[in-house]
Amino acid sequence: MAKSLPVSPLAPASFPDLPVIKGVRFASASAGVKYQGRTDVMLAVMDPGTSVAGVFTRSKTRSAPVLDCQAKLGGAADAGAAILVNSGNSNAFTGRHGQTSVAEITSAVAAAGGLPAERVFTASTGVIGEPLPHGRIVAKIGELNSALDETALEGAARAIMTTDTFAKGASATVGIEGKTVKIAGIAKGSGMIAPDMATMLVYIFTDAKVEQAALQAQLAEICDRTFNCITVDSDTSTSDSLMLCATGASGVDATGNAEFAAGLERVMLDLSHQVVRDGEGATKFVEIQVTGAATDADAKVHGLAIANSPLVKTAIAGEDPNWGRVVMAIGKSGAEADRDQLSISFGDVLVAEKGWVSPGYKEELGAAEMKKQEITIKVDLGLGSGQATVWTCDLTHQYISINADYRS
Amino acid sequence: MAKSLPVSPLAPASFPDLPVIKGVRFASASAGVKYQGRTDVMLAVMDPGTSVAGVFTRSKTRSAPVLDCQAKLGGAADAGAAILVNSGNSNAFTGRHGQTSVAEITSAVAAAGGLPAERVFTASTGVIGEPLPHGRIVAKIGELNSALDETALEGAARAIMTTDTFAKGASATVGIEGKTVKIAGIAKGSGMIAPDMATMLVYIFTDAKVEQAALQAQLAEICDRTFNCITVDSDTSTSDSLMLCATGASGVDATGNAEFAAGLERVMLDLSHQVVRDGEGATKFVEIQVTGAATDADAKVHGLAIANSPLVKTAIAGEDPNWGRVVMAIGKSGAEADRDQLSISFGDVLVAEKGWVSPGYKEELGAAEMKKQEITIKVDLGLGSGQATVWTCDLTHQYISINADYRS
Repeated sequence: MAKSLPVSPLAPASFPDLPVIKGVRFASASAGVKYQGRTDVMLAVMDPGTSVAGVFTRSKTRSAPVLDCQAKLGGAADAGAAILVNSGNSNAFTGRHGQTSVAEITSAVAAAGGLPAERVFTASTGVIGEPLPHGRIVAKIGELNSALDETALEGAARAIMTTDTFAKGASATVGIEGKTVKIAGIAKGSGMIAPDMATMLVYIFTDAKVEQAALQAQLAEICDRTFNCITVDSDTSTSDSLMLCATGASGVDATGNAEFAAGLERVMLDLSHQVVRDGEGATKFVEIQVTGAATDADAKVHGLAIANSPLVKTAIAGEDPNWGRVVMAIGKSGAEADRDQLSISFGDVLVAEKGWVSPGYKEELGAAEMKKQEITIKVDLGLGSGQATVWTCDLTHQYISINADYRS
Repeated sequence: MAKSLPVSPLAPASFPDLPVIKGVRFASASAGVKYQGRTDVMLAVMDPGTSVAGVFTRSKTRSAPVLDCQAKLGGAADAGAAILVNSGNSNAFTGRHGQTSVAEITSAVAAAGGLPAERVFTASTGVIGEPLPHGRIVAKIGELNSALDETALEGAARAIMTTDTFAKGASATVGIEGKTVKIAGIAKGSGMIAPDMATMLVYIFTDAKVEQAALQAQLAEICDRTFNCITVDSDTSTSDSLMLCATGASGVDATGNAEFAAGLERVMLDLSHQVVRDGEGATKFVEIQVTGAATDADAKVHGLAIANSPLVKTAIAGEDPNWGRVVMAIGKSGAEADRDQLSISFGDVLVAEKGWVSPGYKEELGAAEMKKQEITIKVDLGLGSGQATVWTCDLTHQYISINADYRS
């Protein structure tokens, strides 16, 4: 199915050149979990001393792999670690069989790599509620283990795709005390995207040395400004997982370092935007900047109400500068708003202020903004200093086609 | 625009025969607010002694007519009352001009009917953010006033339509102490439907005599089980208004009467279902029955999360028995759930239980249920005795077509 979809018009020109992250190696293989003629399993193996942090969906029906990862977080770093991910089946709502699948896979990876099973993390993405044919994955672990290569991150990015139309990667290089630390990550989307902790699947690696608890705290904080600020369709996956592995191979301690945090945020923001750019059926990338709210939390509530509104999203698809629907979304969001203090701009065009259309607004100016592929909607509540920025895409016929026909 | 849409496949065969409600008369006219070649204004005038109750959107950006109605509720019944409604323009987010329009219309209706302006209620539905050409409406008030007729409720139902593909009416007759009380109502939808107090516009009339405060309390309570349990697209209008007028012309006091409450609930449920059946692009009518939740409130949260999920709604459009998406929606709703206590049925087919697919489930059984035009999804949380039923429709290409092209 993924192969038959046209590449998103919002896709980057090509997969980026990612730096090698010392201390971690990758491999991918074709296990035939569901898809034929493509890779569908990836393995990452980290050296001893690697700190592992993670944030996961808060869904009450989260998958067996997510529950297993959450239980294992915070373990000792001295034994190294591994991550195995399959696409084509999410191993969610699969009862006791789901737990068995996780146990079979993690013990096989542990045995092949000489690791304790408590340091093997897994993720599964794809259809919900069908038993994972874990035997097909276990049968490929020897092949994966012998193919591990520090340059194989792009192949890993391709193996975890489902309805994604392009592979997603991003990187940053940060100077700390005259030395260099590298960060590289991959992600997949591209429907069921309204992350409550992270998006579907994201894996980020760095050769920085960061103490585990500090890494976890930093990851969660940045996630709130990046992956937790994107939405494609308001639907939250049962499998959302974002893991960050710091191998320490650079010998540079970045614990609490602000430059490192900024570099990590650039990578996470870049990947989160790529997920939106590959939102199912997307033809427009939309940034919603909310300012002047009573609190930052209120600003985010307003931003996500606009971003999730089917009527706003279809208006954008139709290139209609329908600011009345933005007013509607603000009104329904539940967060504080005063109709007569509100102003709304499309790009730099002020369309509405003081409870009505702006005196200088002309429909053709708004219409010109909406014809762009990258659209900015600015909302100022006029109430306080709370602000937030969220990102989304439009809602098109292609979204309906993908989701009325595809069993995901 | 409304005229070019095909009639919903879920529409009733014809508009129902509605009983005459003594004490109220109706008229409709073509004022050319926006639409051409159809009626777009309706007037209802109630005799002295009529109690008027209303529930309205809780949107923070609600329209000028809504604010005006809310301020006037609870006034003395001895002077009679009137309701004037226009379609084609919602008079929402129209600043000071919006208040002027309301004042011009209400004072003209008051002058023509010999009523105080404090007893004239208005509503406007259609595009947000454009000035209401109230002069066109005021010019028709004399014509409306002289055409008032107790049998003209169907015409009023037609005048308030926007993207509705059929006019909506319902009625009940209730025996109280050997006498008969009648209830008749009309409604319009059909996008921006996720009522927070009521749906877009609903007007219900009865010849029962009910004390005003009791009528208001009864209306709000029933609204929570009817109009507040439907959703088309999760978007809440700036104009939602539901008004109930009890003329008392029957001479029967129904204050606090259980039979009357049951009759009123039948009318409200019927009208709310008709709004869903005319949801933009709808091809399936979906009832979601949630039981076994920790509380009734939790059950409604789960029901609405399922009903509003784009992935559930597109699966229904595609006749795909994709129960995994129901699991996802329950997981994200925020209300209490235990994956392993959950059971899900499509119609009478048990598809999932105890955290996994039901042993006896066969895909073809689920698929047969999904081919029906009326679909029931039953969810039991297995946690307590909380329950709720909500209603929605599917999400189709036609919804995208209507909303990417139509400025509403």
